[in-house]
Order: sequence, then C-alpha cells, then structure tokens
Amino acid sequence: MTYCLGIKLNQHMILMSDSRTSAGVDNISTYSKMWRYGVPGDRQMVLCSAGNLATTQAVITAIEKDIREAAPVNMLTVKNMPDACKYIGNISVECQKLNTGGGPVFETTFILAGEIVGSPAGLYMIYSQGNFIASSSQVPFLQIGETKYGKPILDRVIQEKTPLDRAVLAALVSMDATIKSNLTVGPPIELYVLDIASLQEGRYVAFDSDDEYMQKLRKSWNILMEQAIDKLEPLHWN
Amino acid sequence: MTYCLGIKLNQHMILMSDSRTSAGVDNISTYSKMWRYGVPGDRQMVLCSAGNLATTQAVITAIEKDIREAAPVNMLTVKNMPDACKYIGNISVECQKLNTGGGPVFETTFILAGEIVGSPAGLYMIYSQGNFIASSSQVPFLQIGETKYGKPILDRVIQEKTPLDRAVLAALVSMDATIKSNLTVGPPIELYVLDIASLQEGRYVAFDSDDEYMQKLRKSWNILMEQAIDKLEPLHWN
Repeated sequence: MTYCLGIKLNQHMILMSDSRTSAGVDNISTYSKMWRYGVPGDRQMVLCSAGNLATTQAVITAIEKDIREAAPVNMLTVKNMPDACKYIGNISVECQKLNTGGGPVFETTFILAGEIVGSPAGLYMIYSQGNFIASSSQVPFLQIGETKYGKPILDRVIQEKTPLDRAVLAALVSMDATIKSNLTVGPPIELYVLDIASLQEGRYVAFDSDDEYMQKLRKSWNILMEQAIDKLEPLHWN
Repeated sequence: MTYCLGIKLNQHMILMSDSRTSAGVDNISTYSKMWRYGVPGDRQMVLCSAGNLATTQAVITAIEKDIREAAPVNMLTVKNMPDACKYIGNISVECQKLNTGGGPVFETTFILAGEIVGSPAGLYMIYSQGNFIASSSQVPFLQIGETKYGKPILDRVIQEKTPLDRAVLAALVSMDATIKSNLTVGPPIELYVLDIASLQEGRYVAFDSDDEYMQKLRKSWNILMEQAIDKLEPLHWN
C-alpha cells in the first residue's frame, strides 16, 4: 500500500508521500513516489502515485522519454493542468494495457498538483481509468492509497484558508497516524510545498525513519491527544 | 457498514456500537447492534455485531430461543467467556450455512465482552468462521466493521491503565470520526460500561443524532484538534 496526500490552500499546495512498497509482508522495499517537473517562470508540477509499482515506473519512464525526445505533447509543453492530467491518464491506461495480456489489470492512481503560466493552479486525482477530478474548495485535499486512518484529522483541520504551517503539521500527523496503524505505509516521508503564482521551484524535505523532528512530533502528538481528550466534558451518567 | 468497539481496561469494559444498516446508499435503516445477557451476581455479557443483518438477526433469535427453551447450553448456562464465544460462533456458522444455499456467504462478526462467576472477565472478537480471539494487554481494544477512521485516536490513547472517563471519551471521539468520514456508520450511538468483578448490570446510554452532548463534543474536538496542531513545533525549512 501507499499513502499520498495533496492539499490546495489559498496560496500554497502541499504534496506528501510515503516510500514503502510491498508485494506481501515479506517483500518490503523503499521507492520514492514523488516526481517533479518544472521550468522556472513557466510551470511547476508535482506527481505522486499509489498502486502497482511496475505500472508506476512504466508511466514515469514514458513521461521522461517524451521530455527527452521533445515529443509534441509532454509535461513541459502541455498548456494547462487539465491537459497534463489527460496526458498522464492516457499514458497510464496504455501502460496498464501493455502489462495485462488479458489478465488482471495492475492499476495506479496519481495525484498531480501544479501550475502552468497563463492558467490556474490545480490539484487533481487521476484515476487508473485515465479520467480525473479536481479538488474542491469545500474539501481542498485529495488522498490516494491507504486513506482512511489519516482522514479524520484532515476533515477537522483542513480548509482552503488554513495557514500553511498548520496544514503542513496536519498532513504530517495524518501521515504519522497511517504509518502507526498500517505496516504497508512507511518512511521516508517526502514533502513538497509549491507557492501558488510563483512558478518557481518549491520547498522539499524528506524525513527518514529516525528523523528527530518526526520522532518529536509523534511523541508530542500522543501527549497532546491525551490532553485534548481530558479537556472534553466527561460523560455524566444519569 | 457498521462500527463497533470494545475496550478492556483494568476495572471496566466499554462497548460501543453505531446503529446504521445499509443495503446500498438508497436503503438506509436503523437497528441496534448491541444485546445484553445477564443474571446479577452470576454473569453479565454484552454482544455487538457487524455484518449481514439477516445473519445477525438469525443468530440473536437463536440465542434468545435457547434461553427461552432452557437449552442445555445457552448464554445463561455457559461456564466461562471462551465457552460463550464458542457457543455464539457455532450458531453464527449454522445461520450462515442456512442462508447461503451454495451462493455467497452472508457473514457477521461479533464482539463479546463479559464476565461469568468463577472465571475471568474477557473481551473477544468472534469471526464469521466461528473461531475467536481475546484482546491483549498490549492492545486492549477490538474493533469490527469500518475500523480504520477511528483507530488512530485509540492507538494513541487507550491502554489497560487508561482511566474510564478518558477511555469513554476516546471511544466517543473514535466513533464520531468514523461517522464524520463514512456515511454507512450513523447514530444512535449505544454505549455500555461493565464494571469488572461486580457481576451487576452496567451503565447504558444511547446518543441520538441530535444529542446535545455529542454535538458539543464534536465541536469541542474540532477546536481542540486545531489547538493541538498549533502546539506542535512547526517545520523549519532549511
């Protein structure tokens, strides 16, 4: 499994992904699930994936080949974010077809966040069928993979107007809850923040399993949860 | 779907269940998923179910028939909690067999908490296959149904030594997170607390959808989550 998360705030977009891949609990490995495509002043995009690793790698290879060979349509030439989604969706469907041979389909789902000059910034989920949806102002986050453990904190904290620091912390808590509850999601955790309307490279950080900041955050959150529970009005039995 | 939760503390056991049943999103109904069997001074047991409603009702009907007709083995004669689990597991397997006719199996999973005089109190999960497990002192809670949304708060707060008030609040927050994130889990929420070693009837309360206490708890928790996030050390970008 995998857990990836995208959040679109008023001024920023946050992308986060874990790095664990598993083909059974006895076959665990570490692969980044985050890729970046950008030309300063022209476009900045971040892609995250959840699903079959072979399909994911085939899609990424095809995207990079198109850029290298300057194909008419590629990530550095598409005109806007919906076109970028359509482009990736098509490649994904092709790669899944190639790998099936009539057997089971090895699906991959993507989150794409980015901005291209002259068109609006956007956060999208690209389904394995190649179609896609944008985030909404009501629920400005999208999740793929093992989404349930980390959803409650986002449901309670994340809105478009949420300040960046708070949203980053909520995303880290959401990821940490998922890692704690599910063995198939694991570090390094990758985090990327894009500044909307800048078209410049964003900020990137990766947290290893022994990262001091994440360990401190986990301990603090455990204590804060107990304290928060104790601040609730206890149930008065009649 | 359904969400039921059992917690075994040092001195108490907590059982909680939602009341929504659904056969598709256009066929929603309300049924209690909690049943109690007790004889003061001799035994107290609480049963919760998640799964097929017809199977559940068949099991409950069979349990009640055995009590009414004073069958040699019934909930008021079994000698200890493992025997009670075995008894319910057998009935459950029988009911599932009757209803399939070779087609799909309509499964139900149970949580059983209770105590019978002369033997230890226990919290158990009875699988649809009729076998069962007890809770552990490391992880003294069991969940059935839609378990993921409500697990992180339990993972962080619940231990055997957790005070009753705190554990009840964590259970309510866990249920509320699940209701907020999943349409197929809904009120009334039923809550039962058994005092270990008392063998007396426990405390019971049900919260309707418009329950003032639950509404206040939900609002308070939203605020407390924002406050807790803001108390974490923000990420310092290099």
